[in-house]
Amino acid sequence: MTTTSTITLGANQYGKAENRVVRIYRDSPRHEIRDVTVSTALRGDFTAAHLEGDQAQVLPTDTQKNTCYAYAKEKGLREIETYGLDLARHFVADVEPVTGASVAVDELFWDRVEVGGQGHDHTWVRRGPEVRTTVVTVDGSGEQVVSGLRDLVLLKSTGSEFAGFLTDGYTTLAETHDRIMSTSLVATWRYATTELDWDKTWSDVRRILLEQFAVVHSKALQQTLWEMGRAALEAHPEVAEISLSAPNKHHFVVDLSPFGLDNPNEVFYAADRPYGLIEATVTRS
Amino acid sequence: MTTTSTITLGANQYGKAENRVVRIYRDSPRHEIRDVTVSTALRGDFTAAHLEGDQAQVLPTDTQKNTCYAYAKEKGLREIETYGLDLARHFVADVEPVTGASVAVDELFWDRVEVGGQGHDHTWVRRGPEVRTTVVTVDGSGEQVVSGLRDLVLLKSTGSEFAGFLTDGYTTLAETHDRIMSTSLVATWRYATTELDWDKTWSDVRRILLEQFAVVHSKALQQTLWEMGRAALEAHPEVAEISLSAPNKHHFVVDLSPFGLDNPNEVFYAADRPYGLIEATVTRS
Amino acid sequence: MTTTSTITLGANQYGKAENRVVRIYRDSPRHEIRDVTVSTALRGDFTAAHLEGDQAQVLPTDTQKNTCYAYAKEKGLREIETYGLDLARHFVADVEPVTGASVAVDELFWDRVEVGGQGHDHTWVRRGPEVRTTVVTVDGSGEQVVSGLRDLVLLKSTGSEFAGFLTDGYTTLAETHDRIMSTSLVATWRYATTELDWDKTWSDVRRILLEQFAVVHSKALQQTLWEMGRAALEAHPEVAEISLSAPNKHHFVVDLSPFGLDNPNEVFYAADRPYGLIEATVTRS
Amino acid sequence: MTTTSTITLGANQYGKAENRVVRIYRDSPRHEIRDVTVSTALRGDFTAAHLEGDQAQVLPTDTQKNTCYAYAKEKGLREIETYGLDLARHFVADVEPVTGASVAVDELFWDRVEVGGQGHDHTWVRRGPEVRTTVVTVDGSGEQVVSGLRDLVLLKSTGSEFAGFLTDGYTTLAETHDRIMSTSLVATWRYATTELDWDKTWSDVRRILLEQFAVVHSKALQQTLWEMGRAALEAHPEVAEISLSAPNKHHFVVDLSPFGLDNPNEVFYAADRPYGLIEATVTRS
Repeated sequence: MTTTSTITLGANQYGKAENRVVRIYRDSPRHEIRDVTVSTALRGDFTAAHLEGDQAQVLPTDTQKNTCYAYAKEKGLREIETYGLDLARHFVADVEPVTGASVAVDELFWDRVEVGGQGHDHTWVRRGPEVRTTVVTVDGSGEQVVSGLRDLVLLKSTGSEFAGFLTDGYTTLAETHDRIMSTSLVATWRYATTELDWDKTWSDVRRILLEQFAVVHSKALQQTLWEMGRAALEAHPEVAEISLSAPNKHHFVVDLSPFGLDNPNEVFYAADRPYGLIEATVTRS
Repeated sequence: MTTTSTITLGANQYGKAENRVVRIYRDSPRHEIRDVTVSTALRGDFTAAHLEGDQAQVLPTDTQKNTCYAYAKEKGLREIETYGLDLARHFVADVEPVTGASVAVDELFWDRVEVGGQGHDHTWVRRGPEVRTTVVTVDGSGEQVVSGLRDLVLLKSTGSEFAGFLTDGYTTLAETHDRIMSTSLVATWRYATTELDWDKTWSDVRRILLEQFAVVHSKALQQTLWEMGRAALEAHPEVAEISLSAPNKHHFVVDLSPFGLDNPNEVFYAADRPYGLIEATVTRS
Repeated sequence: MTTTSTITLGANQYGKAENRVVRIYRDSPRHEIRDVTVSTALRGDFTAAHLEGDQAQVLPTDTQKNTCYAYAKEKGLREIETYGLDLARHFVADVEPVTGASVAVDELFWDRVEVGGQGHDHTWVRRGPEVRTTVVTVDGSGEQVVSGLRDLVLLKSTGSEFAGFLTDGYTTLAETHDRIMSTSLVATWRYATTELDWDKTWSDVRRILLEQFAVVHSKALQQTLWEMGRAALEAHPEVAEISLSAPNKHHFVVDLSPFGLDNPNEVFYAADRPYGLIEATVTRS
Repeated sequence: MTTTSTITLGANQYGKAENRVVRIYRDSPRHEIRDVTVSTALRGDFTAAHLEGDQAQVLPTDTQKNTCYAYAKEKGLREIETYGLDLARHFVADVEPVTGASVAVDELFWDRVEVGGQGHDHTWVRRGPEVRTTVVTVDGSGEQVVSGLRDLVLLKSTGSEFAGFLTDGYTTLAETHDRIMSTSLVATWRYATTELDWDKTWSDVRRILLEQFAVVHSKALQQTLWEMGRAALEAHPEVAEISLSAPNKHHFVVDLSPFGLDNPNEVFYAADRPYGLIEATVTRS
């Protein structure tokens, strides 16, 4: 039997998750909006809190929440990477026991409502389901910004095949040279720097990912992901690495022959589960 | 004690819910897509099925599913109202025991992916979270089409107040003359006809709802809903009635004074629950 | 063109939805817990609020929320039907413009954590996913209590068939005399009285529904629902009517023959969508 | 500008996610049920698939799905750890390009429906929301089994405090010596062996976690997690390490004083977001 003396506290962190912060800029009648969900996580030596319940080194998660709201005013909330850096640097620099902090920010998008063909000054409609993301980490090893997006749902109705694959005794799948390919993309890319036009870079990486998804004639989702990642890295030397996670949202051609109907890739059943899940990182050697 | 003889079968219906149908039109290289979720419900005298387990009058829900897919090819799937009418009329006209049918269709929106500034021929990105809806009912009393939308998330950062309200011993709310007003709108409107340019009418009703949400200076969500509904009915005599259900998605001004910060309606906490829920129908007398 | 004068306000109501109220009874070291989600909806003549934005007759939804929390202490929160009646009666009796109120209460279940074989005094683990429900309505026509449950997920691995059904040109389904039948039951029953041992009655109706689901040899889900409803009404004369809504959560036998394996109803694919949806009311004539 | 030659494929894997497998054992009239969701992920040299679209080394995710269903019959599906090991070993041993495989299995729980006080032979009701989990990984470095649970929702209504914490200029939280502590626990523990009575061990670790949550007088969630992990490791030398992730599901005492009511920790508002998130690993040195 293992004895108590050999049991120790391993990795640990704590924070306040999913603070919903909406920031309105109203310096002119034409307001601006930023709508984010922020989560903080602090690391340091919190052994006493765990082993003895001594909270003297523990900044409450409630305080972390307050800081997220205060900083939206004090430092501002424009680009989520800057906002995340401000918060993470603060926790590490200003809160004595904290040696590392991660701040994750999700941003929801809003479009101005059109009134008479013009975007309204202070009324918006949510665009979605896509979410822009960043995770900022500050600790003894430096500063890291990993930005990205999720819930970017894509579909192409041709230009995708899947054939020539490996088979074994459990294989029943037929080859296809024309299918629907659809995914709900999660992309995260690590920046090599913390000095950047964050919005501009993010938008351009996103543009590249979408364009590649569209123009690559795909022999498999793996190939499409590679081409998406490669193009992003080629165009953006400030991106060190990109990871793509892509569920293969299957669309099955419905057999309409029992009803005397042809179905040349026109009517599909969009399945929920199971789904293929293809994950790849494209990096620099 | 009530005896068995007095217990009877009341209202009943059955169908196949949430058939995921994707229809690609590929007659030219520039494909078109319709992405819908269809639910059917059939009514008639199904007493024997309930009391004796006799299914002789019961068309399987699996058959209803097949019909949804077959009709997407056989009759086509362009406007969801037409597709719903085709299906509902078929069940009532062609399936002997069926005396009434409801077909509900939800449509998801896709935008073409931009490649070099042009919408791509066969690649789309999901727009959302908004969903276009219709419920078509055909039975002995005629045909009814109720169309609408849901998950249309709106927010205005000023131009909304709430004051002069009734108070009682449980009231603690302060009056406000400037607040965020936000909702996730559900709107359904009943058409007075089944002959219509469905897409055009739907788009125009939606445009009116959004514009009114933007331009009405709101003394309460009730007033905004009324103005939205009234404007839609005024512009569209073919709309008999409109119902609006609007959660009041509360955005609370955060008190930053403990941190020596002013907060003139700039930083908000977006709450999840509870939420106000305001529901109103605007009709014609 | 229809003119403004013919457009009028129709049915409308408003309230505070999804107030999360947890009530601890701690009069002895052996605590008790009630965990509910309460939604209120008030009706009356709120024309001025809609047409003119005049809130003088509008009790804020925030006040309704406060009342839900205050009543949990003032009147107590034991049986959800009593709590709902207390609230609905209060709104109609004590708030002048209110002529009708509906209060919906969902209750989450907790079991005591076992410590050394004994239920702990003040620690619980959530039982679920089942939710107990009630909707209490008080207005000029009297008082109505409709209680029930939802998310009661049931499955029987035999004792269910589906055969002898109606077919048409879109039918491909094969008959079966042995299948899995599974549902996520929603049941609501209307009481003929407001004076009752609510907990005891609710528990017994639930017991009957489960037992009937188990013991009835089912020729179709319709028959099972009928037998469940009939048995509940036979045993409980205080129940006026019961409505059952049952998704048919399909479990498909997987064809293992390509792998040289027999599958006599042993391995199933549990599908998400589409699903059959069977709805029936059992009432008294 | 970075050139193409430096861009390379990094970590990658692919598989079929969320296969819903239900296994009925019906060798006697008293059936048994296992209800799992299985996800597979394969690793190896899939460079050609990414860079050239050559699928010759890629076993389709559809085949992986088939294998999950076939193995439920061929090898059986009793303990999820054994089932996961069977699958992961197969992919690595029998599919040539595969050098590593992870198989994640989630298990849903069913209780027998009581009929006349006896558990029914073939009818079940879902217990939940708790899910039993395992992730089995087989690769060149050996075999690893990490089992656990999630969605185990716990609450204690006293015996928890939070005081003596660190403060800064953003701190407003008051100390408390009596509060509700509630969480939705995620626990994962790594076994030091692959030869074990999996069900018995899992149940006992779970029992310990619950008991400790109940009996520890908590000065903070960190302390509770430590004591839970420590007790599990002390009792089970075959557990190498345990990680606990615990959202602090805040229950706020409602201020009823505006209504002339006392509230000595009896009426609470259960908040959704934000929530504290406390994570700790307890390991062996």
